[in-house]
Amino acid sequence: MSAGRSPAPTTGTVLALAGGVGGARLAYGLAAQLEPSRLTIVVNTADDFEHLGLHISPDLDTMTYTLAGINDPAQGWGIRGESWAAMAALKRLGGEDWFALGDQDMATHLLRSLRLRSESLSDITSDFAHRLGIRHRIVPMSDDPVRTMVDTDAGRLAFQDYFVRRRCQPRFLGLDFAGSASARPGPAFLAALEDPALEAIIICPSNPLLSIRPILALPGIEERLRQHPAPVLAVSPFIGGQAVKGPAAKMLQEIGLPATPAGLLQCYEGLLDALIIDRADAEHAAFDGGERRIPVLVTDTLMRNAADQLRLAGEVLAFVQTLSAAGQ
Amino acid sequence: MSAGRSPAPTTGTVLALAGGVGGARLAYGLAAQLEPSRLTIVVNTADDFEHLGLHISPDLDTMTYTLAGINDPAQGWGIRGESWAAMAALKRLGGEDWFALGDQDMATHLLRSLRLRSESLSDITSDFAHRLGIRHRIVPMSDDPVRTMVDTDAGRLAFQDYFVRRRCQPRFLGLDFAGSASARPGPAFLAALEDPALEAIIICPSNPLLSIRPILALPGIEERLRQHPAPVLAVSPFIGGQAVKGPAAKMLQEIGLPATPAGLLQCYEGLLDALIIDRADAEHAAFDGGERRIPVLVTDTLMRNAADQLRLAGEVLAFVQTLSAAGQ
Repeated sequence: MSAGRSPAPTTGTVLALAGGVGGARLAYGLAAQLEPSRLTIVVNTADDFEHLGLHISPDLDTMTYTLAGINDPAQGWGIRGESWAAMAALKRLGGEDWFALGDQDMATHLLRSLRLRSESLSDITSDFAHRLGIRHRIVPMSDDPVRTMVDTDAGRLAFQDYFVRRRCQPRFLGLDFAGSASARPGPAFLAALEDPALEAIIICPSNPLLSIRPILALPGIEERLRQHPAPVLAVSPFIGGQAVKGPAAKMLQEIGLPATPAGLLQCYEGLLDALIIDRADAEHAAFDGGERRIPVLVTDTLMRNAADQLRLAGEVLAFVQTLSAAGQ
Repeated sequence: MSAGRSPAPTTGTVLALAGGVGGARLAYGLAAQLEPSRLTIVVNTADDFEHLGLHISPDLDTMTYTLAGINDPAQGWGIRGESWAAMAALKRLGGEDWFALGDQDMATHLLRSLRLRSESLSDITSDFAHRLGIRHRIVPMSDDPVRTMVDTDAGRLAFQDYFVRRRCQPRFLGLDFAGSASARPGPAFLAALEDPALEAIIICPSNPLLSIRPILALPGIEERLRQHPAPVLAVSPFIGGQAVKGPAAKMLQEIGLPATPAGLLQCYEGLLDALIIDRADAEHAAFDGGERRIPVLVTDTLMRNAADQLRLAGEVLAFVQTLSAAGQ
């Protein structure tokens, strides 16, 4: 990147693809800097599951709570100041308690489950966001059910069984996104892709296998991203060979890929037009953009607080402008 | 009743019919004095309803929480020390909040709703009671759905709409127990009626129209009670022309019956073999047992605390013994 070059002012729209905590943090920063009409955040729903009779959408909730500013910053998921009275009562009555449901969080699942009888997940998500004061579009990747199944050395496991109950301990072998072949991408997702003003597709620092691949696996989506005139950028979820949160590093390594920018590039199989990586990785691996020599922005990618989120999002958007200016 | 007579020791079984708060209070006293094998408590389920996608059984819950000693003694229903975080969150998301659901209480409804997919209400009720340390049998009147519909001057209303949302303000005209004609009495209810050792059927001080009539309306039940060799006793829910709790007095008056022992006798249409009434009513109305001159026990029927519940239950059981000794 040619430092010191003044990027042209950007007016186009941005499509962000995200999973849970890391994705929500960058999305918060993007939302702080882009008018609502200029940002669509597409969220993974392949982690959704039914538990205790309730439809739970973990990534949608993390995104919504984060953008509403009611998220628990310490644990990443859930609501700040959450209480656990229902969970304790549930356990007393013999209910399953391996998936922690806070009292406030439970209201989200309860109302969503009820409304799903007659409304789409897109509409419910949009209404919840509106009621929580969010003006940007948070969009489920699909209104149809897609469910990640994880092939492991302990057999094929439903995602939350692998992720929460077994804490990602079984060796990861591969993924299947059940329902994906017949799932339609959400209407607002398609609308964002068709928007002639779309200027960048930003893959947030989410788990590439668990959070982003399910989005790419929707019919036609990966092909559309590859052919789209707007650049596809990814913010690496790795810092110094480790994932900031979650099992991404362990999973990549278990399928023979390093938890590095190079590993991420391989993981996305030539989809990326540009990459944002952490200083720790630039220094350690002297990453040069891979075989295609794509543009790389080296910065501090760790988001510890709102200031970090705004700074990183600002740098990513500035990077987009340099790509546009360079005709990428 | 001939005071001073020493009743024979009782070893038979007792069947209690109950609705919500008042019934639960007397049942608590009965349970404290009878071995678990000697008491079956049949609870009204015609107030059950679906709300927010959950199956709610208000009277079963009041009974279970009361016998488990976790009930809220101040408001009568719900759990002591309850919190309301889910309800507040639900309201924030636009959910209905006219029916108050505490966080702990919500766990009951959630787990019951889930288990009803594959288990009977009787089995779930029994398991919940067991897990809360209750050794006596709490039995839904039926495992089949019966739903009280209230005819009023504001039209036909679902029970909770009349009772909670409209606070019983519309003028009461009549009742319909939808589903009753095809509902089977619960298996433990029938077993208690068939028990040769059954010594008394005690109608708790519950609303005769809303809580007890739905039980009597189950196919064959009223006839079996009328023909049963064991006496049918009722503890009047009225004191001095008022109901201790709820709309019973208002409702009786709206169909032309006084909220007195005489009104209660008329309401039960000759079903009762004996009656327990409050001193306030004995003095006020000089009640003499009605046309059939049934035995009447006059005592303090107000149950303000556990001591009152034990005392009244003890007096009722002693009264049963005098009836048995007198060959009633």
